[in-house]
Amino acid sequence: MNLMILAQRTWNSAVTTTRLCSHVERHHGAPLVVLGLSLIASTAVFAADPLASWNDGPAKQAIVEFVKATTQQGGSQFVSPAERIATFDQDGTLWVEHPAYSQLFYCLSRVPEVVKAKPELASAEPFKTVLSGDRAAMAKLTLDDYLKIAMVTLSGMPTDEFKQQVRAWLAEARDPRWKRPFTELTYQPMKEVMQYLRDNGYKTYIVTGGGQDFVRTYSEEIYGVPAEQVVGSAGATAYVYDKSGKPQLIKQPKVVLNDNDAGKPENIYLMTGRQPNAAFGNSTGDKQMLEYTKAGQGARLVMLVLHDDAEREYAYGPAQALPETKVGTFTQPLYDQAKRDGWTVISMKKDWKKVFAFE
Amino acid sequence: MNLMILAQRTWNSAVTTTRLCSHVERHHGAPLVVLGLSLIASTAVFAADPLASWNDGPAKQAIVEFVKATTQQGGSQFVSPAERIATFDQDGTLWVEHPAYSQLFYCLSRVPEVVKAKPELASAEPFKTVLSGDRAAMAKLTLDDYLKIAMVTLSGMPTDEFKQQVRAWLAEARDPRWKRPFTELTYQPMKEVMQYLRDNGYKTYIVTGGGQDFVRTYSEEIYGVPAEQVVGSAGATAYVYDKSGKPQLIKQPKVVLNDNDAGKPENIYLMTGRQPNAAFGNSTGDKQMLEYTKAGQGARLVMLVLHDDAEREYAYGPAQALPETKVGTFTQPLYDQAKRDGWTVISMKKDWKKVFAFE
Repeated sequence: MNLMILAQRTWNSAVTTTRLCSHVERHHGAPLVVLGLSLIASTAVFAADPLASWNDGPAKQAIVEFVKATTQQGGSQFVSPAERIATFDQDGTLWVEHPAYSQLFYCLSRVPEVVKAKPELASAEPFKTVLSGDRAAMAKLTLDDYLKIAMVTLSGMPTDEFKQQVRAWLAEARDPRWKRPFTELTYQPMKEVMQYLRDNGYKTYIVTGGGQDFVRTYSEEIYGVPAEQVVGSAGATAYVYDKSGKPQLIKQPKVVLNDNDAGKPENIYLMTGRQPNAAFGNSTGDKQMLEYTKAGQGARLVMLVLHDDAEREYAYGPAQALPETKVGTFTQPLYDQAKRDGWTVISMKKDWKKVFAFE
Repeated sequence: MNLMILAQRTWNSAVTTTRLCSHVERHHGAPLVVLGLSLIASTAVFAADPLASWNDGPAKQAIVEFVKATTQQGGSQFVSPAERIATFDQDGTLWVEHPAYSQLFYCLSRVPEVVKAKPELASAEPFKTVLSGDRAAMAKLTLDDYLKIAMVTLSGMPTDEFKQQVRAWLAEARDPRWKRPFTELTYQPMKEVMQYLRDNGYKTYIVTGGGQDFVRTYSEEIYGVPAEQVVGSAGATAYVYDKSGKPQLIKQPKVVLNDNDAGKPENIYLMTGRQPNAAFGNSTGDKQMLEYTKAGQGARLVMLVLHDDAEREYAYGPAQALPETKVGTFTQPLYDQAKRDGWTVISMKKDWKKVFAFE
């Protein structure tokens, strides 16, 4: 799971994050009043433009033209409302994935509770290291270690209990840089695209390498995407009766869907039976979903988010401002393919007027 | 797969079917004019009643009361529109499953084509027997034989090609008794329930032990259920590039979802993240879906279709008019559980004014 590649960077980049953090605070302190005034002044424009947080440019233009082409009754590229599907990767496409996927923070936060229930884990690796809080040691945890942590923290409980655990955590947890709930670190321009597509008859799906059950706990509230329109990596459940004879579903430590790479188009097909008309991603884990979307007939909107804004968010991948992100999933070849295959690259720096709603 | 239990009955019951068939034709011939007149006379009533094909009685009443209870704003059992989910088994619940699931007829029809592409299968069992057309020999095919037939006829092709194959077959194939397309053998009262629920904000899902891809080819047109609201048994797909470099999904001979028994609630959860408010089934393969639906909070509608109308459709299960259907999936204990757990049994004979739209 690509989840794990980023996981390994988490602790390595803690120092960098802290440095960036104080930099941003300095930067953002001064022009706050100016920004406030300009927001008020342009309210009228905002109301008229469904993509208000986008600068004019090829990215915004591609979105508007796609919607026009596919919704114009009688047009050669018209798509019937029932067939309008748009898929969005989550981590790095809809919200911040740096320094690590929020679900990884969640899994780590659950370790003490899990060890309380199964004390034998306290002396077993990788749990011992996580409990130690020793960041240098944690930085050395392997992919297998992270998989073990995910397996025990995401299984064993009834599905309803899991939802409550995630909701309780989301209410308390804070991103290390902005000190805000993770659910506030969503990209405002992308939420506008989702709403704009829905307003034009598209069903918007989140297609994430992260846990389907995790994302479903907040997708409706945060993105306006109902649980049944979230496709993600998923574990099995087992149908069992509790002591009173009441049936419930218990989450199992067994992967049913790995929603990365080729898994994305395969699972989109499994869950919907359809080929998307539009798709949005940012990493090599999204490559096949983007290709598959582009391969369909008629107008296609395929977009790749480039993290090139070290100031307002992060710069990594081809932008390479954070050296430790060279490990792999945001490679230059993906951006070369975007050019070659007619995908549209979204530059966070150039295309987005604002990144977050709270700015 | 329960698919196979019924399959084994197919050829055994061919004689019975033919006998029933001529009986029904005699019966239906005479009162056609009378029926036509009564239809015209009662058009006004039909328009007013969304459940026009239902007789007044406990089944119809249960449906109406459930909808009233869950949609009345401010009521103690109100369900928010986003959470309104109703799930329907297909075979035997939405359309005729006797003498065999139509998908089985489809698989058998594909055997000659498959053998043309893979001539080595012509001399291998069970394909040799199927090609022989020898019904006595086919009646002896085992569950494993049918699984082999399903595996080779439902895999190996791009997903789009599969859709075309199914559509072409559906246009030509005829049910052995009514000599009509299988898609006309849907139960009019159940289609009315689906529409009635949708008109009241429910998302209707088909949750079938049959093939998800198969049902998705016609679900929108026949039931008004879009492809993404069909949950069923499903094979894997593989993401591959064709010779021109264009990506496509190829259907694989490997089961990903077995949508029977406990698989039904597990897969409903996998696909939607939700617990249905209403569920409809007819066989032991639906038992867990019905239990799981009933186990939720608030008003629940759980209904079991009883095939007790040998004249207009078939009688089997507890009605036991067709002796060869004693083999298993429609057992008395399921109907005992319905009474005990507060499910509502639908008697096709008593509760349905008409069974098919073409009557």
